[in-house]
Amino acid sequence: MFQARARAEVLKEVVNVVSTLVDEAKFTLNAEGLTLRAVDPAHIAMVDLTLAKDAFEEFKAEESEIGIDIDKLSQFLKLARGDDIVDLRHDEDKRKLKIVVGDITRHMSLIDTTGMSDPKVPNLNLPASVTVRSDDLLQGIRASETVSDHIALVANSEGFEMSCEGDMDQVHWKKAKKDLASLQTENSVRSLFPLEYFSNMLKSVSSGSEVTMHLGSDYPVKMEFRIAGDKGEVRYLLAPRIESSD
Amino acid sequence: MFQARARAEVLKEVVNVVSTLVDEAKFTLNAEGLTLRAVDPAHIAMVDLTLAKDAFEEFKAEESEIGIDIDKLSQFLKLARGDDIVDLRHDEDKRKLKIVVGDITRHMSLIDTTGMSDPKVPNLNLPASVTVRSDDLLQGIRASETVSDHIALVANSEGFEMSCEGDMDQVHWKKAKKDLASLQTENSVRSLFPLEYFSNMLKSVSSGSEVTMHLGSDYPVKMEFRIAGDKGEVRYLLAPRIESSD
Amino acid sequence: MFQARARAEVLKEVVNVVSTLVDEAKFTLNAEGLTLRAVDPAHIAMVDLTLAKDAFEEFKAEESEIGIDIDKLSQFLKLARGDDIVDLRHDEDKRKLKIVVGDITRHMSLIDTTGMSDPKVPNLNLPASVTVRSDDLLQGIRASETVSDHIALVANSEGFEMSCEGDMDQVHWKKAKKDLASLQTENSVRSLFPLEYFSNMLKSVSSGSEVTMHLGSDYPVKMEFRIAGDKGEVRYLLAPRIESSD
Repeated sequence: MFQARARAEVLKEVVNVVSTLVDEAKFTLNAEGLTLRAVDPAHIAMVDLTLAKDAFEEFKAEESEIGIDIDKLSQFLKLARGDDIVDLRHDEDKRKLKIVVGDITRHMSLIDTTGMSDPKVPNLNLPASVTVRSDDLLQGIRASETVSDHIALVANSEGFEMSCEGDMDQVHWKKAKKDLASLQTENSVRSLFPLEYFSNMLKSVSSGSEVTMHLGSDYPVKMEFRIAGDKGEVRYLLAPRIESSD
Repeated sequence: MFQARARAEVLKEVVNVVSTLVDEAKFTLNAEGLTLRAVDPAHIAMVDLTLAKDAFEEFKAEESEIGIDIDKLSQFLKLARGDDIVDLRHDEDKRKLKIVVGDITRHMSLIDTTGMSDPKVPNLNLPASVTVRSDDLLQGIRASETVSDHIALVANSEGFEMSCEGDMDQVHWKKAKKDLASLQTENSVRSLFPLEYFSNMLKSVSSGSEVTMHLGSDYPVKMEFRIAGDKGEVRYLLAPRIESSD
Repeated sequence: MFQARARAEVLKEVVNVVSTLVDEAKFTLNAEGLTLRAVDPAHIAMVDLTLAKDAFEEFKAEESEIGIDIDKLSQFLKLARGDDIVDLRHDEDKRKLKIVVGDITRHMSLIDTTGMSDPKVPNLNLPASVTVRSDDLLQGIRASETVSDHIALVANSEGFEMSCEGDMDQVHWKKAKKDLASLQTENSVRSLFPLEYFSNMLKSVSSGSEVTMHLGSDYPVKMEFRIAGDKGEVRYLLAPRIESSD
């Protein structure tokens, strides 16, 4: 059993985050809310999302799983304004999700979740963490996109840097410790990441949010941010690229 | 003889309506105003437009016909703001339409109307009629576009419904009688239409307008709406599709 | 040696003008400011731009030349708002231009200027001149673009006209002398130009500017306008097309 009502902008946030990595996703439901864990087809990145029942206007669910075509849900939500109320109801007999916005009802076929994996979140010991405004990060990413396919994230006691080295040009985006919301690191750490993944992930973060990144050297980055007015949380994990030593 | 002056937004409304179905059109002129009737190349839909001379700032015409390339006229009108005055004059010797907006004059070749048909408006007895705001209809159409190529229009004593049944998903848009500007029907009627035609027709209606639809069962729909601040009228006819009985 | 600070919108104006004709350009620097002269690859048009040191917030330069990839500079400037300060510094050892906007630094490879030509500005005796608002000219150009690939510029004692003659349609844009900022001509002059070049040049002019055109009969047009709040000047030269006499 699952039935809920939510403001469209909450569901849009969820869809933006998930669609970054997968087209279809399994939502796990219980009385406390909703969780979702998914790995992209290339196994380079993982998303781990939780949304408490308080993020909804109404929420009732038994333990269950529903498989959703994220594109379809995204298209449907485009019909709604941010503060429209969306009504969701799982029709178990017909294996559909009934979604209502205003005068419109869609009966959406659900996806069989039998074959869908349950990714484990790896246990990572990441020595550095830095908190940055998403809009600042996006500006650094936009500056990098014309220069290389990879971006290095560097944290040390002085500040945080994104660095992009192309054959011809180099781009550096840098914030001193005093200009960061938070910075904790004992040693200098540096890892290299595929820029497209990193960029898509950050573009899914709502403007005005803060993103906390946990970093090591040649280790994955774990990015955390809040959604749904602090009633939900997203963790992205992104695997590093090995830097060539030339 | 034809010479007239009109606000650009009036002509833009005409062009939007006509370009839905045809690239070239024959305008029939007389002292009372302008009429246009055209059938799309696939003979699925017809437009029947009348614009009274009062819709113009100035209007003088003898009985005549001019064939206009709708794309060219549309391009030219994009140069004008809505409240700019457009000056039109038929140069019969050169077979051109002289159009002036501000500092710009275009001498536009007219199209030979000899071969252009004079479609007859069929005499239809449609038992149901419903009046709906164009913006509401458009939202239902947008919800349907991802689901199927066809849309069913259904009217009964309780309300009006647009319904779209795909292989996987179904979309329903529904208004109860009390939420409709008008609804008149004795029995329940239902007809199926090609969504793309229906969608293009409604997208040509100015935002904020009301559209009256006359409906039967497996019969064409006749859509009526006013243009040019009530000084003009459009009737669209759209042929039904036969519903398969599976 | 070259180091300077400028508001981003000043550099954007320069980039817009230069990118109309070339992808790469040689900037010539000295203590008084910056000049640039370039001819498009087809040798149909020339740009001659000067920017006084007063156009910059700070400006220090010895006599030198730097070759810049205009596309790269344009991309980078898109990261800045108009009133952001851009810091430029020539790193002669690494043959790079270091550009800083806010938190972002780009080290941009410079282009070897050895093979780049030094075009001479031809000495032209153009008997007519007319000054027109750029936005008015652009409207005439937009009206012409659907009609022909060429545009005739005509000046006489009564006014100024842009005229475009296609096989089917003709477009004329005309301003009487009294509606022009300035018009000086003894005889009637007329020259024909490739519309795409003329259009691209005028689209690079900031909205609200005035453009002075110097004209003859079957002669190049010289277009002049100010940039950087009157601290810079642009001259475009565009070669005429010979009119066929049919």
